[in-house]
Amino acid sequence: MKNAIGREIPDELLVNAEPYKGNYALDGVEYTKPGPTVRASIKPQESKIAGSLRDAIVQCGLKDGMTVSFHHHLRDGDYVINLVMKEIEALGIRDLTIAASSVGTAHDPVAKMIEDGVVTGLQTSGIRGRMGEAVSNGKLRTTAILRSHGGRVRAIEQGEVHIDIAFIGAPTSDEYGNARGTGGKSDCGVLSYAMVDAKYADKVVIVTDTLMDFPNFPPSIEAVDVDYVVVVDSIGEPKKIASQAARMSQDPRDLMMAENCVRVMAATPYFKDGYSFQAGAGGPSLAVYRFLEPLMIERKIKMRWAIGGITQPTVDLLNKGLIQCVVDAQDFDIGAVRSVHENPNHYEISTSQYANPMNKGAFVNKLDFVILAALEIDTDFNVNVVTGSDGILRGAPGGHPDASAGAKCTIIVTPLVRGRIPTVCERVVTVTTPGDSVDVLVTDYGIAVNPARQDLIEALSAHKIPLSTIDALKDKAYSMVGRPDDLEFFDRIVAIVEARDGTILDIVRQIKPYEL
Amino acid sequence: MKNAIGREIPDELLVNAEPYKGNYALDGVEYTKPGPTVRASIKPQESKIAGSLRDAIVQCGLKDGMTVSFHHHLRDGDYVINLVMKEIEALGIRDLTIAASSVGTAHDPVAKMIEDGVVTGLQTSGIRGRMGEAVSNGKLRTTAILRSHGGRVRAIEQGEVHIDIAFIGAPTSDEYGNARGTGGKSDCGVLSYAMVDAKYADKVVIVTDTLMDFPNFPPSIEAVDVDYVVVVDSIGEPKKIASQAARMSQDPRDLMMAENCVRVMAATPYFKDGYSFQAGAGGPSLAVYRFLEPLMIERKIKMRWAIGGITQPTVDLLNKGLIQCVVDAQDFDIGAVRSVHENPNHYEISTSQYANPMNKGAFVNKLDFVILAALEIDTDFNVNVVTGSDGILRGAPGGHPDASAGAKCTIIVTPLVRGRIPTVCERVVTVTTPGDSVDVLVTDYGIAVNPARQDLIEALSAHKIPLSTIDALKDKAYSMVGRPDDLEFFDRIVAIVEARDGTILDIVRQIKPYEL
Repeated sequence: MKNAIGREIPDELLVNAEPYKGNYALDGVEYTKPGPTVRASIKPQESKIAGSLRDAIVQCGLKDGMTVSFHHHLRDGDYVINLVMKEIEALGIRDLTIAASSVGTAHDPVAKMIEDGVVTGLQTSGIRGRMGEAVSNGKLRTTAILRSHGGRVRAIEQGEVHIDIAFIGAPTSDEYGNARGTGGKSDCGVLSYAMVDAKYADKVVIVTDTLMDFPNFPPSIEAVDVDYVVVVDSIGEPKKIASQAARMSQDPRDLMMAENCVRVMAATPYFKDGYSFQAGAGGPSLAVYRFLEPLMIERKIKMRWAIGGITQPTVDLLNKGLIQCVVDAQDFDIGAVRSVHENPNHYEISTSQYANPMNKGAFVNKLDFVILAALEIDTDFNVNVVTGSDGILRGAPGGHPDASAGAKCTIIVTPLVRGRIPTVCERVVTVTTPGDSVDVLVTDYGIAVNPARQDLIEALSAHKIPLSTIDALKDKAYSMVGRPDDLEFFDRIVAIVEARDGTILDIVRQIKPYEL
Repeated sequence: MKNAIGREIPDELLVNAEPYKGNYALDGVEYTKPGPTVRASIKPQESKIAGSLRDAIVQCGLKDGMTVSFHHHLRDGDYVINLVMKEIEALGIRDLTIAASSVGTAHDPVAKMIEDGVVTGLQTSGIRGRMGEAVSNGKLRTTAILRSHGGRVRAIEQGEVHIDIAFIGAPTSDEYGNARGTGGKSDCGVLSYAMVDAKYADKVVIVTDTLMDFPNFPPSIEAVDVDYVVVVDSIGEPKKIASQAARMSQDPRDLMMAENCVRVMAATPYFKDGYSFQAGAGGPSLAVYRFLEPLMIERKIKMRWAIGGITQPTVDLLNKGLIQCVVDAQDFDIGAVRSVHENPNHYEISTSQYANPMNKGAFVNKLDFVILAALEIDTDFNVNVVTGSDGILRGAPGGHPDASAGAKCTIIVTPLVRGRIPTVCERVVTVTTPGDSVDVLVTDYGIAVNPARQDLIEALSAHKIPLSTIDALKDKAYSMVGRPDDLEFFDRIVAIVEARDGTILDIVRQIKPYEL
């Protein structure tokens, strides 16, 4: 059947799942949270340090068919997934499901384990590199599930994903498992994704390269949830964990789009003292800060809170007092990591607090503005951030669908075309954020407002912001680069894109090899 | 049958429970934690503020027979239990169980609700005042359950107590329910007991008298767990919430006992740089700090962490750098409350982190020393801190059994007699901390070491600390004030004293009125 955004969802997938019905359709649903099965430690033990990663895996009782989880705060510098999976493979354990907050090129070695049947299930937000290719080419024996950051927490907190063992790479830990995102030699700032895993996994293993005196406080992960601590030489490559701050884009096109985003923001009733804000880490999104700063000073208004993946431009405004506090679920650069240490108004939050749609109210529910990028956006305002123009998985829903659904004003900023590929199109390859969560599209060729938001159309018009329609923008894109050929897929479904509420938003089929 | 400490536990109580089998008997037990039944808030809502306490109670769906929970961080100054129970009574709802971390004289009005059947179940650590009298006199229609602080968390985290609605008095909250123990006009420092309730209760209502801007961070209680916020005029009487620091005892007897406690500590192998420590809030326990300070300076050692109910003397040593950090589950005076705000090395922890015996390792498991008081201690080292010499409930197991079971060296400090009542006796009226958790008794007439701790007997002897036996101390007490008459009880069991692991440690029977 077709779901609420017109995507055909095969019946066999709807046995245990519902089709997407709209962004707030499940509001108010009641459910009972699951709990982990744990082992009581009544008798005092001085330390939980295991002799090796292998010892910890064995002592946790890992068996064929189980689910292991990982986080991606160490980003492209992560060593933990490969270290753990190598030990698991060496132990001869197979048929595992990886439930990760994201996987990428750092985990290319795991692609082979997918082909070999060591890994037969994959649940993740991001998927890139050889793992993306392996899944797109049908190598994974089950259907992968792609979720937003909030959707991942939801699935855990609703019991759809049961984590047998969470392996949590932590920059610092004490011998009892109080672990922190800050400090050490592989500093990633926060451990927001892992905070959830630690509370719901049966077994929790901290993997660290820097052991601290007990108690290592305040902890991101509490020792009361930790079974074993493993000390390794290194959990990651610092240079790739937190990059130098991306230099603010000087591209005139990016700057023009960023300036237009701020014009849109300023035309809404939400742009007032105490507003809240999230921006993605893309060039035009980041450049928005450059135009926000003088306008906030001119209007004498401050941002009450900024959220999201945090970057240097956010931290700069925090330090200047233009942002009152930062709530942080992930750090993208050195400036953000450093700010977690240094600024008392920079707070770590769990991804449940950030974006779980099924708790009693996540931070995204209180967002005024979010500014995000897109690989594609179609004339129904549906956004794709996961499949490339070749149909291969190489992206991440991340917090995109969560912030979009929560914010009062969701702005997608993207150039109309990239190379020979139209960004604005008739039909995105894969929908990752549904159009009913998207309010405004800012491109280098014009601005379009979702017709569902007549209030915004009126507000922007009142501020003399010239508006286009998204169909006109699509036509413009097609006139520039032509209508792209449809991609060709096999029937086999390789991945499900879950909406953040657990319904099925879209599916990804196995790509047919490109033939000249 | 008789349990491991020789207390006769009637068979009818052993249908759903086990008798106490020793302090680490259940080590390693596996169980599945329960989860609350919650309502998803996907659609953004600006505020969770309810019009009134009554509105919140009604909207939460409170019904006859349900369980409501409260914490006692506001101590003798608490208004919240009475405010909530008055509204519940006015709504005509009956047959409720109160699951509180403690109740006391502040809640005398609830005693009448026990008699009237509004409250028919009571689970608490402390019980004093008219509620204690009501239960002791058989007015409660079911058997009350008394638990330690760690035992209370255990019961919640093992699903034995299911909280339908948690009413959490909070010094500050924002409109979304991010609540803190600090700030406002009814400052209690931390919300450690309530942190657990918020995670396991189906519905959570924050009751505050000070509304803060969103986000009120960092929160003790996270908005993601909160259904409603109710703003009232006052949640407590500040003077009674945090008392002025108790003046350090000048009583020569207290000082002599305190000095002996420190001599005992210094004679053990645990008294070295980096040691950990907890002391109760009684006069001799507090006076221990006075003797610890010069000795630590002389020996050039520091305390790594202090824990527990926190008091001014703890904070003084923290500020002097002799304690490196304080982990705090309750504040007993203004100095402790202020320190939570001011000292970055003073950390709030949940009572699960503090003392739950069934998680993967609580703080008490890593304790070197704990120094605690007793109403009575018998020749098997069993301690009573809950029933008075008249057999009436007027005390609290609190963290006593938890810290005693966890610490490497548990010292009970108490005068040999109080008035005409022997403290050291043949058989305590009620066992609240089992003797297998107690290592040393320090009195004003001598020191006795539990024979199970030959290592400590040798260590103390090597340091030429004169030792008595606990039988000799009991004989001395009886020679001074005579052997007390046995109290007389009816058959009816009015309260069960649970060991921290959930087994039955002892029972309390209905007291017979005293006849001249």
